[in-house]
This record gives sequence, structure tokens and C-alpha cells, in this order.
Amino acid sequence: MKKSEFTSSRKREHLEICCENDIETGFAGFDDIRLVHNALPECKLESIDMSVRFLGHNLSSPVFIAAMTGGHPDTLQVNKNLALAAEHFNIGMGVGSQRAALENPQLSDSFTAVREAAPKAFLCGNLGAIQLVEKGPEWADKAVEMIDAQALCIHLNPLQEAIQPEGDHDSNGCLKAIDELSRTSKYPVIVKETGCGISRETAQKLWSAGVSAIDTGGLGGTSWAAVETLRAEDKNLINLGRNFSDWGIPTAVSLIEIAGFEKPVIATGGIRSGTDIAKAVALGANLCGMALPLLKPAMENSDSLNKAIDNIHRELAVSMYLTGSKNITSLSKSRTYITGITRQMAGF
Amino acid sequence: MKKSEFTSSRKREHLEICCENDIETGFAGFDDIRLVHNALPECKLESIDMSVRFLGHNLSSPVFIAAMTGGHPDTLQVNKNLALAAEHFNIGMGVGSQRAALENPQLSDSFTAVREAAPKAFLCGNLGAIQLVEKGPEWADKAVEMIDAQALCIHLNPLQEAIQPEGDHDSNGCLKAIDELSRTSKYPVIVKETGCGISRETAQKLWSAGVSAIDTGGLGGTSWAAVETLRAEDKNLINLGRNFSDWGIPTAVSLIEIAGFEKPVIATGGIRSGTDIAKAVALGANLCGMALPLLKPAMENSDSLNKAIDNIHRELAVSMYLTGSKNITSLSKSRTYITGITRQMAGF
Amino acid sequence: MKKSEFTSSRKREHLEICCENDIETGFAGFDDIRLVHNALPECKLESIDMSVRFLGHNLSSPVFIAAMTGGHPDTLQVNKNLALAAEHFNIGMGVGSQRAALENPQLSDSFTAVREAAPKAFLCGNLGAIQLVEKGPEWADKAVEMIDAQALCIHLNPLQEAIQPEGDHDSNGCLKAIDELSRTSKYPVIVKETGCGISRETAQKLWSAGVSAIDTGGLGGTSWAAVETLRAEDKNLINLGRNFSDWGIPTAVSLIEIAGFEKPVIATGGIRSGTDIAKAVALGANLCGMALPLLKPAMENSDSLNKAIDNIHRELAVSMYLTGSKNITSLSKSRTYITGITRQMAGF
Amino acid sequence: MKKSEFTSSRKREHLEICCENDIETGFAGFDDIRLVHNALPECKLESIDMSVRFLGHNLSSPVFIAAMTGGHPDTLQVNKNLALAAEHFNIGMGVGSQRAALENPQLSDSFTAVREAAPKAFLCGNLGAIQLVEKGPEWADKAVEMIDAQALCIHLNPLQEAIQPEGDHDSNGCLKAIDELSRTSKYPVIVKETGCGISRETAQKLWSAGVSAIDTGGLGGTSWAAVETLRAEDKNLINLGRNFSDWGIPTAVSLIEIAGFEKPVIATGGIRSGTDIAKAVALGANLCGMALPLLKPAMENSDSLNKAIDNIHRELAVSMYLTGSKNITSLSKSRTYITGITRQMAGF
Ligand SMILES: Cc1cc2nc3c(=O)[nH]c(=O)nc-3n(C[C@H](O)[C@H](O)[C@H](O)COP(=O)(O)O)c2cc1C
Ligand SMILES: Cc1cc2nc3c(=O)[nH]c(=O)nc-3n(C[C@H](O)[C@H](O)[C@H](O)COP(=O)(O)O)c2cc1C
Ligand SMILES: Cc1cc2nc3c(=O)[nH]c(=O)nc-3n(C[C@H](O)[C@H](O)[C@H](O)COP(=O)(O)O)c2cc1C
Ligand SMILES: Cc1cc2nc3c(=O)[nH]c(=O)nc-3n(C[C@H](O)[C@H](O)[C@H](O)COP(=O)(O)O)c2cc1C
Repeated sequence: MKKSEFTSSRKREHLEICCENDIETGFAGFDDIRLVHNALPECKLESIDMSVRFLGHNLSSPVFIAAMTGGHPDTLQVNKNLALAAEHFNIGMGVGSQRAALENPQLSDSFTAVREAAPKAFLCGNLGAIQLVEKGPEWADKAVEMIDAQALCIHLNPLQEAIQPEGDHDSNGCLKAIDELSRTSKYPVIVKETGCGISRETAQKLWSAGVSAIDTGGLGGTSWAAVETLRAEDKNLINLGRNFSDWGIPTAVSLIEIAGFEKPVIATGGIRSGTDIAKAVALGANLCGMALPLLKPAMENSDSLNKAIDNIHRELAVSMYLTGSKNITSLSKSRTYITGITRQMAGF
Repeated sequence: MKKSEFTSSRKREHLEICCENDIETGFAGFDDIRLVHNALPECKLESIDMSVRFLGHNLSSPVFIAAMTGGHPDTLQVNKNLALAAEHFNIGMGVGSQRAALENPQLSDSFTAVREAAPKAFLCGNLGAIQLVEKGPEWADKAVEMIDAQALCIHLNPLQEAIQPEGDHDSNGCLKAIDELSRTSKYPVIVKETGCGISRETAQKLWSAGVSAIDTGGLGGTSWAAVETLRAEDKNLINLGRNFSDWGIPTAVSLIEIAGFEKPVIATGGIRSGTDIAKAVALGANLCGMALPLLKPAMENSDSLNKAIDNIHRELAVSMYLTGSKNITSLSKSRTYITGITRQMAGF
Repeated sequence: MKKSEFTSSRKREHLEICCENDIETGFAGFDDIRLVHNALPECKLESIDMSVRFLGHNLSSPVFIAAMTGGHPDTLQVNKNLALAAEHFNIGMGVGSQRAALENPQLSDSFTAVREAAPKAFLCGNLGAIQLVEKGPEWADKAVEMIDAQALCIHLNPLQEAIQPEGDHDSNGCLKAIDELSRTSKYPVIVKETGCGISRETAQKLWSAGVSAIDTGGLGGTSWAAVETLRAEDKNLINLGRNFSDWGIPTAVSLIEIAGFEKPVIATGGIRSGTDIAKAVALGANLCGMALPLLKPAMENSDSLNKAIDNIHRELAVSMYLTGSKNITSLSKSRTYITGITRQMAGF
Repeated sequence: MKKSEFTSSRKREHLEICCENDIETGFAGFDDIRLVHNALPECKLESIDMSVRFLGHNLSSPVFIAAMTGGHPDTLQVNKNLALAAEHFNIGMGVGSQRAALENPQLSDSFTAVREAAPKAFLCGNLGAIQLVEKGPEWADKAVEMIDAQALCIHLNPLQEAIQPEGDHDSNGCLKAIDELSRTSKYPVIVKETGCGISRETAQKLWSAGVSAIDTGGLGGTSWAAVETLRAEDKNLINLGRNFSDWGIPTAVSLIEIAGFEKPVIATGGIRSGTDIAKAVALGANLCGMALPLLKPAMENSDSLNKAIDNIHRELAVSMYLTGSKNITSLSKSRTYITGITRQMAGF
């Protein structure tokens, strides 16, 4: 089996594991956050403006379809459904890691199909920081070109790599490679975690490196430690995976730590409703990524996915209405109640 | 079906749902509040003076029969029983929304019966803020005249409206309409929520608008999201209702936020005993509204209702006695212990 | 039935209810308190000096047999067993309310038997504050004379009285009567609650009134509301009792509020082990009263009771040893960890 | 039965009780501690340097095999397995109390076997502080000589002694004896608790006495009160043991109290994974002792034990990698989240 084949078959395996198992661990912290009801919204629910401007693009809502898949023919339909929704709703979408398709261009169909289905949507390419180190900015450029992306997500997943037998255990040079790419690329670079969160300290390094946006990718939603544990056969690795399944910074805590620097922030990880999105925006998020809750309907059909997004939008609109937020800027300034462990972790 | 018929049949449906289902959600916060025992009350239990002065009226206790019903012939007996109790105990009472009867005067019997049964009681009319915007101060005046009310409650219920298919989703102009009414009406205007609470910010706007009193109508008692969810048939609306069933500011938190401005405040929402009333008074409430706990006995008969109120009064008197509060003013100055989530939400 | 007969038969009923039912409610707070382990005690367990000086008397330990019974022939044996233990261990003991025996001197045998069995023990008489108001200092003197007491406990029990149909609901004049008695009596006056605790404010009044010591009698042990609820037949009273069964200030909180004024303090209410006693002493208690845990063995026989007290002493000694406290003064200065609701109620 | 025989048979009994029963009580506090994920580790997992310098010795990791056994022929194999692991991994190891072998030199085989199996390892002798007082520094020297130890652990176990019928209840002179030994011995003296923790106050006395290192030996792991309770037959002693089974300072709290004084600290008690070790290091520990989790595999065979330690090392390495700590010094400076009761006990 060639490396690209291996990477791509793992991709398919991941999708199946995510849909059939309980792979959410830890807590994202949104249950500890409450929005402040405004009994006098002084606006019209139907006129609520959920649109956001993100990296120079106008999007109809902060809902962001988080990076999930691509790189295997079986994932084409899912990616197409996700892309159709991104186009239909004019929301942002990130594709899954393009590594397999970069290694083996024959596997790029499931990626190019995304742009075909979403000719005008805000699309983000996806590459691991470690691949960036290995292959240099050329691969980054190729990833962007492959889907004519508006931005590139560089994902950081040291936990997943660390507990995988075939994982890459060397993260040297990642920051430098991100720094160089950010300063030279023509497209904005977004750095994202994939389930363990970004700390204040890491965010400061990334802002200094010149990245355009950071995605929390925090604890509390899809857990790659849990996914890898289900895939693993070696008993030691299973134990290792279990021990680290709730490792990380809860999304809400990560968000509190990295927001407030006048820099675009995406909150991802365990966001499960329009109300969670509203809470995240109130805590400082510009976009809110969702992966797992969209994966299941996307694997059914386009209609199911659109209904799911409609419901999320409805909840977000109602949450905005009930906090008296006519638009996202107003929501982002609204007061929240922070309680419990999240309060303690945030240092209040 | 004409609009007024529709409104009125919905009223009846509400009463039934409330009596037969568990429609209380969230937490009101009173479990997090403890009164400070006074081992030396230095007074006589039977001489405890529970009377309050509210908007220029002398009431025998802070118990307030919160707005519930009217507008459908089937609700006449309930309203009559409630009114008889208000008269018997000399306590305040609010009628349910008078919208149906204003739309269709033939439906006003269940309201006029209230004043007949309670010729001297402190009665409050009831109108939605949205109706006030639509129909202007004339309807407000008519509502007051219909029951010869001492005051008018303008209710705010954006959540209930937002999750109802037939709901009014436009709350523009509510504050302005309230402002105008407050400044021109001959009767005092009370603004109340109906289960989601009033925040400090909203209260400040309302005080500036010149309202005479605010009713918290906080989270933790009857949940309209829960009621509407039970009425709903559309699956999406049921989900929406569920997601918002614990939306809002707990009554105790809302009370802490809006009290202390030398303005009359009513605490309503999840108040379930005379001790809860004592806690609310200690936190700054002038009156304490109860709906659901009085609805069930009121639907049985006048006797059941009077016994229920007797018990509440007894508990309040004992609570006052045990905090050494000879009267409500003294109780309102007594110290409390605030713990748990309520302590965190209140920012202590 | 004469009043004294009634009082006395109620006494017997109480003992039975306490022994056969779960009548402990609320939380005393000692679970939220942890002593600081001292790995270098630098003393000998067997030389630990648990003796205390209290109101001029030398007692062998802070264990105080809290007021329980007397006034009915059936209680004579229990009282005798308690007295034998007080004498045997040289610890303090309070008798139950002497009201019945003061009303009807024929009922005084169960009290005089206490002094006979404990000729040298530190004994406290017991009278309700309300009886003191009604009958004046003469009764107080008579109560002391009846058992040749070293001190008199005046008990405050407004909750118990308030929820009893036959209860005395007037507590006017209690403070004044206590003040007069404290200033004129030849014996020290101790004021105690019986399950609801003494607040800082009440303590200040009592210190100003010149009382010699205060007993917290806090929440978390025997609940008189629970006892009266079990005795009650009237449904309304049962409900009232239940609603107030966890009313009051937890013993640990009361202790924190009233200690630290250089005045003798007894901690009573929910103290269930020698470790609880050590915690109470560390929080500022001079003596620690126990009622219920001693009642059961005392109703068996003298031996059971002595074993129970031996065990409590052993636990106390080990707790002192493990905090490196050679004597009670040293224990009273030791650091504690205060967590949970008790921490919040104490305002830390 | 001679004293040494008695001591030695008790040793064997302990091992069996520990392996077959649930003898862990209380909470160590590590669940309340969370490490801060670093999404940009900038290092290589396989290059993580877990080595530490401790009392002048270079050890390959902070894992320390805590004092467990020796002194009975049946324990020889276990001790040999532990020693082989210490040698294999170049980690520190403490032997169990050498008292029995000092009393009866025929019992020293199970100790000398340790040095034979681990000719180069960092080994610590072990003697109770009370034996040190009784027998003087000669015994300490003999204990060290017996295994040619690099350091001597003086253990403090006042709780275990206090609840044992045959226990030594006199801890007078311990501090003085430790002081003298520390100032005169040629080897470093480490003072350790055995399950109840060292407080800030005790640590200060020990640092002043000149000890080289302190081992928390905190609450939350093996509980000697629990072990002794299982061994006890006397009902009173069983009760006493139960009442004290969660006595003590949680390891994490003890660690926070005693770390930060530029003095070597060992964290022991309830450390159950490599992640717990990483947390302890981040809180200030130099070494982390584990007893129970190593006892079970050590009783199986050398291979099981090595696998267990491999797994712990792997978890520690991954934890270091994921906090971006290339070495232990870096880990020791990393930020932590402290929540819950541990946060309250630590006074934050
Ligand atoms: C099936 C699946 C595949 C994913 N693949 C990628 C990926 O290739 N690249 C990436 O950056 N994140 C990937 N993610 C992580 C998501 O983008 C997201 O950060 C994470 O799932 C947390 O969001 P959630 O809790 O809403 O699922 C994947 C997530 C899922 C569920
Ligand atoms: C059956 C029912 C009908 C109600 N109708 C009205 C109404 O018409 N207008 C209004 O302002 N509030 C209405 N309310 C809200 C109550 O006045 C009150 O704010 C709310 O029920 C919270 O109090 P509770 O927890 O004691 O029930 C109604 C409540 C109930 C239970
Ligand atoms: C059976 C019984 C009878 C009591 N009678 C009296 C009494 O007559 N006078 C009094 O001051 N307290 C009385 N008490 C209250 C106790 O003195 C004590 O304050 C209370 O029980 C709390 O302690 P505990 O939790 O250890 O039981 C009585 C308690 C019990 C259990
Ligand atoms: C079976 C066993 C025997 C022990 N014997 C000793 C001993 O002789 N001397 C000593 O200082 N500590 C002794 N300990 C205590 C340990 O060194 C350690 O402090 C304690 O068990 C807490 O660590 P753990 O929770 O990882 O077991 C013993 C522990 C166990 C489990």
C-alpha cells in the first residue's frame, strides 16, 4: 500500500467511526455559559442579520462547516453535499486534509467537486502543519489551487499524531513554517486545532507569526483520541488513547483565552446548536465551526443537511433576537454569565 | 376561525396543558438563597405584619396572584375564584392577557367577573407590549376600564412569540410604546416578563421609560417554551422549544439585578412557598407573583385556593418570625446567604 | 390533662420519635471542613490533654452532653445514665427543659436523680426563654437549685414553637429577660438554640446582654421541625414542618459567625464524631454538645453510653494527635481548610 | 513471637491486603488539575527528555518506585523485580521499612537483593522516624549500608501508628532526631509521609531541620487507615480506622503547599498515570512516587512491571509533548488550571 492510499483509506475509516460511535468526550464549556435575556429586543426576528465579514468576505452567518473529509472517492458525495449547503447558505466551509490528494493527484476529485458544487462559497483548503514543514509552501499553494480556496487552514493535531502508531511525532519547525507561509502567501492562513484547543500562549505565538485567524478546535466535541482508540488494535495504544481522551482546553475556555485581541477567531469543538454559536460569538468568536453535527445529515443527503443548517440558523436567530442583537456585532458585545469549572479555568 | 376566537381557544388549551403536564423548567435560584435565622425574634408570630404598600395601595401581603387567564367562557370560574381570593385576602391580582376580549368584546365576561367578585381588590389589567404597539394606548385604557384596574401590566414574552408558528416576531417599538403609555396614562404601568427574566440593562431602560414597577417574570417556574412545545406539532418547532426551554435569567438573579433602585419590583417565576416569598423580599422584591401554584387549587374551587393561600401566608409569617422581621420593611433589610450558581451569576 | 402533664408526656414522645426515626436534616457543614494533618505531632497520643476550662470549671474534655430530657418518670433512667457518664468522665451535661418539673414538682425526680448520680459534675439547668419571660428569674433560680447546677441554659426554639399547634408564638421580651437574668443571677447564663443556629447579629445582642456563653444549636443534626412533623396530625402542620425542616444556620457557619469574640462558645447540632469535635474546636468552639448520638446508647445502658463516649474521646485524641495539638488551646489555634457551601456562607 | 518476627509477618499481610482489596480512599486532587495543551510543541516526541537531576544523581525520569516492602523472605521476589526495573530504567527506588531487618539481620536478604539486582540505581533506605528516635543514627547508617543506599527516607506515619493496637503512639523527638541526622549524616535525608500529606507548616520545620527533600505522601492513594481497618479485629478499632480513612491532605494540595521553596520535593500518593506525574511536576514536584500501581505488576513478574513503567513513561512523554515541554525543567514551569475543592483548599 502506497502512503497516499494508506492516508486515504484511513480517511474513510474515520468517517464511519465518527458516525457509528460515541466519539465525543470532555466538556466544551458552553453549558457553563448563559446568555443574558433581553425582554425588549426592539427588532424583528425575521430581520435579524446573521451576516458576518470574515477575512474580507461577506458570509450570511457565522456557521462554518468545519474541515472533515475528501481524498477518497467514497467521500465525494459527502463533500458535494457539504459544498452545496455552503453555496446555498453562503456560509464558509473547510475541506478535510488535502494531503492524500497532494500525494496522489488521482484522489483530488473529491476536493475539486467541492468548488464545482460551490462556485462562489468561501472555501478553505486544509493541510497539516507537519506536511507544511515537510513539503514547504508549494504544497500549501497547491492545496489552495486545487479548490480555488479563499484561505488555507493549517491544522495542528499533536495529540492525534502522538497516539497513532503511524503518527508523525515530530512537530519541530511548525511555527517557523507557519510564519513563513503567513508572510509570503497570497491567501490568508488560518491555524486550527482539531480537538485540544489553542491556549493563550500558543495564540500569542501565532498572532506574532502573522496568521490571519485562529480556530480554537477545542475539547468537548469530536475527540480524535477517542476515534484513534476505536481504530487501534494494540492494547497499549488503546489505553493511551483512553487516558488522553479528555485531554485539552475546553472550547469555551480556549475561546476566552484567545479572543479579545482584535483578531479573527473561529470557535470549533463541541458546538452543538445555534445557541452554542450565539454564546461563542458573545465570548468573542467571529465564526463557529461545526463538524460532527453536520456529518451525519451530510451522509444522508443534501436535504437533511440543509434542514439541519436551517434549524441551527433558526436557533441562532432566536438567540440573537432574545438578546436583542440585531446583528452579529451587537451579539458579540452582549454580556454573558460564566459559571462552574469554566469560570474557574478562565480565572474569574 | 377569527383571530379573537383563535386567541381565546389557545388560552383554554394553555390552562389544560399547565395543569396536566410538567411545564416547569430551569432553576429559579431560591434554593441557593438561605435566610438568616434569628433566634430572638422579639415579636409575636400572630402580630407579624405582612402588609405592604404598593403603588399607593395597602395590601395585606406581598403575595400577588400573577396574570393567568380570561378571555374564554371556560376560564370564568377560575378567574372568579382567583378574584374572590384577592378580595378575601386583600392581595393583588393580575388578570390574563385581555387581548381576546379587546378584539371581541363578547369575550370580556371572564374579565368583568373578576372585578365583580373583587370589588375592592388591587387588580391589574394585562396587555402584551406588542398589542400596545399595534393598537396604541386606547387599548391599554380599555383594558384598564374593562376591569376597573388599579394598574396595567404590559407583558413581554419574546421567547414565547419567537417559538410559536403564529407568534408575533416583531418587537420593534415596544419600549417607545411603553414610554409613551407610562408618561401619559392615569394608571401606573407595570412591565413584566413571563418566564425569562428582566436583566439589569432592560430594567434600566424601563426605569428611564418611566414605568412604575417591574416584574421579573424569571426563569425557574412555568416555562412557555415548554408549554408551546407540548402544543406544537411541527417537529422543528418542538426541537426549537426544547432547546429554549431553560432559556432566561433565573428569577433570583433577575431580582438581584433589578432591585435596589428604590423602585417597586415584583418577583415572579418559580416562587413556590412562603419561604421563597420571604427570600425574594429579602433580596428586594416588593410583591411576589405566583401563577402555577395557585392555578391548580383555583381550578378545583374557592376553598382549595383559599387554603393554599393560607398556607403560603403561614409559611411567610413563620419565615418572617424566624428572621425577626415584624414587618415587610424589616424583612427587606435582612441579610441572606447566597451560594452556588446564583452566587456566581450575581457576580459575588 | 393539666399543662404540666401535657408537657411531660410530650417529652416522652419526643425521646421515642428521636430514637426510632430519621430526624436529622440539613447539613451541619463539618464535611466542608478539613483539619490540617501534622506529620510531626511531637507528642504522645496517650498524653494528649483534652481538658478544658469552661466558665471557671475544669472539665476533662470538650464533649458536652447536650440538653435532652427529664420531667417524666420514664426518662429517669436515661438521665441517670447520662449523669453517671458525666461524672465518670468529668464532662459537662445539660438536663432537658425543667419546665414540667417546675410546673409540677412531683415530676422533678428525673432531674434530681441527675445530681445524685453526678455529685461533682458540671451540670447545666435548662429553661426556655419564653418560660423565663413568663415566670421570671425565680423559676430560673429554682431550675438551678433543683439540680444544684453550675450554670443555666436558656434555650431558644422559635421554629419548634412556631410550627407546633400548642406552641408559644410570642417571643417578646426574651432578650430583656435574658439580659436581666445575666446581670443579676449568681450562676452563669448560657443561651442556646436547639437546631437553627445563632447568627452573628443575635450573638452580638446576647454578648451585649451579658450572657456567659452561647451554644450554636445549629442546623444539621436533630431537627425539631422534623420531630414535630412526625408528631403532627394536621396536614397543614405536617407540610409546614416539612417546609421548615432544613431551616436554619448550619452549625459550622454559626460557629464561624459567633466565635472569635473571646467569649465561650459551645458548638452543638450535628456533631457526630470526635473529629467533628476537633473541627469545631479549631473553628473556635470551647465545648461541643452532642444529643442524639448519646441518646441511643443512654437508652440502652450505662455501659453502652460509656463506650460511645470512649470512642468519641479516642477519635478526638487521635485528631488532636494528628494535628500536633497537645492540648485544646493548641487545637483551637490550628489551621483548617474550608470548602464548598460552608465556605460561601462564611463569606470566604 | 519476637518483635522482629511480628513486624515481618505484618509486612507480608500488608502486601496481600493491598493487592486484594480496595484500599484507596479520599481524593488526591489531580482530577482538579488540568495541563494547558500546547498545539505547537515544537519538539519531537521521541526526543523528549524526561531525565531529572535529584540530589546530585541523574535519573532517567521522575518516576520513583515508592517504598513498599522487604523484611520477609516472601517479599524478596517482589523487591527484586522492583529493583530490576529501577536498574533497567535508571529510575529511583525506595525500599520498604528496614526495621525488621535491622532488628533481625537474618531478614535482610530481601533488602540486600535490591542492591544486587540494581547495582547502579538510585536507592533509598527506609526507616520510621520513631525507630530513628529509639535507635539513633546508628540504625539509620546501618539501613543505608544494608543496601548501599544513595539516600535515606525517614517515614512519618502517625495515623497508621495511632489506629494500630500495637502502634507506637509517641512521636516525641522525631523532629530533633531528623534534625540531628540531617546535619551529621553523609547521605541525604528525605522525609516522607505515607498517605496523609505534609503541610506547609510541617515542611517549614523540616526544611529548617536541614532535610534534603520532602515526599508529600499525601491523601488519595493507598490508605493505611483502610489497610489497618481490614487487618483489625476489634470493632472499636475498625470504626476508628473507618473514621480516619480519608484523613489527610490531598497530594496535590500538599504539593502546592510545600513546593516553590527551591527544595527538592517528591509527590507521592494517588499518582496513577503519566499524566498525573506531568501534573505533579507542573505543580512543583521533582520526583513522583508510585507504590500501589507498581505493586500489582511487580507481584506478577518483571515483564509486567516493565510494561507498566513503559506505559507510564509513554503517558508522561505524551503529556510533556502536548504541553510543549522538551524536558522536565520546561514542564515544571508550565501553567496549570486548578479547579474544584483543590482550588479552594489551595486558597485560590
Ligand atoms: C470525520 C471528521 C474528519 C475530520 N477531518 C479533519 C481534517 O482533515 N482536518 C482538520 O483540520 N480537521 C478535521 N476534523 C476536525 C474538525 O474540523 C473539528 O475541528 C472537530 O471535529 C471539532 O468539531 P466538532 O466537535 O463539531 O466535530 C475532522 C472532524 C471529523 C468529525
Ligand atoms: C396558565 C398561565 C397563563 C398565563 N397567562 C399569562 C398572561 O396572559 N399574561 C401574562 O403576563 N402572564 C401570563 N402568565 C405568566 C405568569 O403571570 C407568570 O409570570 C409565570 O407563570 C411565572 O410564574 P409561576 O412560575 O408562578 O407560574 C401565565 C401563566 C400561566 C401558568
Ligand atoms: C430527645 C431530645 C430532646 C431535647 N430536649 C431539649 C431540651 O429540653 N432543651 C434544650 O435546650 N434542647 C433540647 N434538645 C436539643 C439538644 O440539646 C441539641 O441542641 C440538639 O439536639 C442538636 O444536637 P444533636 O444534633 O447532637 O442532636 C433535645 C434534643 C433531643 C435529641
Ligand atoms: C504495600 C505497601 C507497603 C508500604 N510500605 C511502606 C514502608 O515500609 N515505608 C514507607 O515509607 N512507605 C510505605 N508505603 C507507602 C508508599 O511508599 C506510598 O507513600 C503510599 O503507598 C502512597 O502511594 P500510592 O498511592 O501510589 O500507593 C507502602 C505502600 C504500600 C502500598
